[in-house]
Amino acid sequence: MDTKEVAQAVAAMCKEGKHEEAGKQFWADNVVSFEAMEGPMARVEGREGVEAKSAWWYANHEVHSATTEGPYVHGDQFALQFAMDVTMKENGKRMQMTEIGLYTVKDGKIVEERFFY
Amino acid sequence: MDTKEVAQAVAAMCKEGKHEEAGKQFWADNVVSFEAMEGPMARVEGREGVEAKSAWWYANHEVHSATTEGPYVHGDQFALQFAMDVTMKENGKRMQMTEIGLYTVKDGKIVEERFFY
Repeated sequence: MDTKEVAQAVAAMCKEGKHEEAGKQFWADNVVSFEAMEGPMARVEGREGVEAKSAWWYANHEVHSATTEGPYVHGDQFALQFAMDVTMKENGKRMQMTEIGLYTVKDGKIVEERFFY
Repeated sequence: MDTKEVAQAVAAMCKEGKHEEAGKQFWADNVVSFEAMEGPMARVEGREGVEAKSAWWYANHEVHSATTEGPYVHGDQFALQFAMDVTMKENGKRMQMTEIGLYTVKDGKIVEERFFY
């Protein structure tokens, strides 16, 4: 699959709420995930770590609704815009978040993801 | 200005419809602009060329409405999402376009911009 095909497949799965399944299908074994924050989540390398980060997030947030826009493609990269209405289970704080995910594709797999907010 | 301050200033100007002014204020002299297409617009280097590309675009499109969302920041980069309702003057074709601009900041100036659609 080329970048555009991966982008369309990931976008379609996210629009169905299948964010984790999209990751499991398309993350490369050596994927690196960057968050725009300091601390241990700032850079996570490898499929196992990225899946654990994702599982942590879903275990600690209740998602009331989520929308995905895109994909937007350029060369070997694509972007998605996410809007989410979530409650943090730890403190009950409800937030409306928007963010952009920027993905780099190599050999039909996501080798890097970088989140902007 | 740091990346977040540049991002907020550019976003604010774009939300007022001042896209070209934002560029003129924040493009570095050696800015490189990448479009997701083949041909002479794919990579334009230098403030003079990028200003000419921008001027060409505005001379050849009638903008009916435009919105900007963001900024979304990560490290030395930020992203904006644009939605535009435009008519191409050459053939009268009206289009609703959405795209994402990804900007890289150095020393308070935009040194790279990359458009996704």
